[in-house]
Amino acid sequence: MKNVTIPAFAKEYADKTQKRLDELAKLPGSLGRLEDLAIRLAGITASEYPSFPNKGLVLFAADHDIVLKGASASSQEMTEMQVRNFCRGGGAINAFCRTANASCTIVDVGMKRDVDIPGLVRRKVVHGARDFSCGPAMTRDEAMACLQTGIDMARSEAARGVGLLAAGEMGIGNTSPSAAVISVLADMPLESVTGMGAFMSSDRLKKKTELIRHGIETNHPDPSDPLDVLARVGGPEIAAMAGLMIGGASLRIPVVIDGLIATAAALVAEKLFPGVSHMLTGSHLSAVPGHAALMHRLGIPAYLDLGMRLGEGTGAVLLFPIIDTAVRILSEMPTLDSLELA
Amino acid sequence: MKNVTIPAFAKEYADKTQKRLDELAKLPGSLGRLEDLAIRLAGITASEYPSFPNKGLVLFAADHDIVLKGASASSQEMTEMQVRNFCRGGGAINAFCRTANASCTIVDVGMKRDVDIPGLVRRKVVHGARDFSCGPAMTRDEAMACLQTGIDMARSEAARGVGLLAAGEMGIGNTSPSAAVISVLADMPLESVTGMGAFMSSDRLKKKTELIRHGIETNHPDPSDPLDVLARVGGPEIAAMAGLMIGGASLRIPVVIDGLIATAAALVAEKLFPGVSHMLTGSHLSAVPGHAALMHRLGIPAYLDLGMRLGEGTGAVLLFPIIDTAVRILSEMPTLDSLELA
Repeated sequence: MKNVTIPAFAKEYADKTQKRLDELAKLPGSLGRLEDLAIRLAGITASEYPSFPNKGLVLFAADHDIVLKGASASSQEMTEMQVRNFCRGGGAINAFCRTANASCTIVDVGMKRDVDIPGLVRRKVVHGARDFSCGPAMTRDEAMACLQTGIDMARSEAARGVGLLAAGEMGIGNTSPSAAVISVLADMPLESVTGMGAFMSSDRLKKKTELIRHGIETNHPDPSDPLDVLARVGGPEIAAMAGLMIGGASLRIPVVIDGLIATAAALVAEKLFPGVSHMLTGSHLSAVPGHAALMHRLGIPAYLDLGMRLGEGTGAVLLFPIIDTAVRILSEMPTLDSLELA
Repeated sequence: MKNVTIPAFAKEYADKTQKRLDELAKLPGSLGRLEDLAIRLAGITASEYPSFPNKGLVLFAADHDIVLKGASASSQEMTEMQVRNFCRGGGAINAFCRTANASCTIVDVGMKRDVDIPGLVRRKVVHGARDFSCGPAMTRDEAMACLQTGIDMARSEAARGVGLLAAGEMGIGNTSPSAAVISVLADMPLESVTGMGAFMSSDRLKKKTELIRHGIETNHPDPSDPLDVLARVGGPEIAAMAGLMIGGASLRIPVVIDGLIATAAALVAEKLFPGVSHMLTGSHLSAVPGHAALMHRLGIPAYLDLGMRLGEGTGAVLLFPIIDTAVRILSEMPTLDSLELA
């Protein structure tokens, strides 16, 4: 990652866009938060008229052996089952991508088994993250390799013309490392970022929280060293998503994030490369109470609140048409002055 | 309107859809309010797999002479200026429609001047609604003709294959008749449904509210007679939007509504033809405090809250891609059982 630099958010383009929005043939501010979104995208892309004809979701899949201790109510096999389903086009995320006219790229960065599924991008770094309740999830080198995979994916997407990215994930159990990473790196109470997941009783949630807490105590990750935190209590897809965000930011490609897992990755990315968070945009808020606080702290706005908790990057892709609408306004609407002269 | 009947919301299809959503290869309920939206659309269309390849916005334009008394901070000429802009494709609503791949039909139902603009559908009933602060805005026959125009537009849209409609409007000053209609028909305090509009000081808002109140007192519309209320203190585009909703409902075509003006029309439609409101869907909430309460009372859900207050039907059209996503899930995702067997 030596050759990565993060350009600054282009405030001059954001200001120009604010000015243009105020001059368009509509009441100033009347498009509400769509205007904020357009301004943010102008600043990220350093463009007066951002537009995103080619959009892509990149989904990273990995397993987590902490699941074997009961960190999830779903079984570990579900990761591979769903990845097979995605590669056939049958996932929720595929339907979201088709509606948004976005490509959908599935990457094995840390699935348990060696699999050869048509369409799957094989960049496996580990055969599942190790159970971090009794030792480090990954080595530092492995975490670094996962990050690099994400950066590489941002670059290959850019090379084929994608100008807007969404970060997605599939990994049964990955809310646990996400909660651990956030709790340590953002110094937030573990309870505030640990979700019930699916089918989970409050009793089981308590056990899950204790398991994560035990994992943090066992590993004593160094909060001032994000790579150490990522390796010890994180996961391959969290690292790869962070890499995608870093790679996207380095190329001024906006990366849209959604729930807790992507936001854990955004936090890692921001700690590794300060300034990355300005180059991201949020989409929706997770039901986990700490999510909104973390997004606020990172300065990443969310626009939707539809009670979605499916993951896979679905929330991020749902923002794509809203982004298209926001930026079209800039290039396709006349100013009020020109209207009065017409 | 003798030959209009409103079919019942098809609860059996809504129930089937709920069941299907629970069986899909995702955690039950994990798509949150997108699932509610899919269920509602299944019930409206009486279809297990609703889909909307052809979508259309119909925007009704009209003037309001109450503007001459200071009911709006914009000048009356702006209605025609914007309609010309829309017919050239330069409005915010045009950009929203292009993004959503929806057609955009502009109808003169009550503009002040006789105009012949290429692309404009000429169905003028009145040359502007009369100033209702000193007499009825329209005659009963005129209100009826505007309603019929809306019904006709729903039918002509259906005839050319449109399966999902959005109701839009342009009419400087039309928040005043909207507030009046809602206040009388829903027995809500006028203050709770009267908005500041654009550039309006709180002092001017007070004057606007008093002007509307005076209009209601002068006309003493009969709250038990929705057509009387519509004629005396309503407006041509409110009537036509109500007609579009009635026409859409009669054909099981969902009509998406957005802010206060469309909701005033929905209230009229529901009072005229009970059951219409079940066949509508909301999109976003207006900043006017009474809007959420009225939507709740009508049982029409809203999904977005982006601080938009532009009108024209923009909020409604912004929901189109979200609707596409919600219904695609139903037809394109496998069940969890089939996944496990694969």
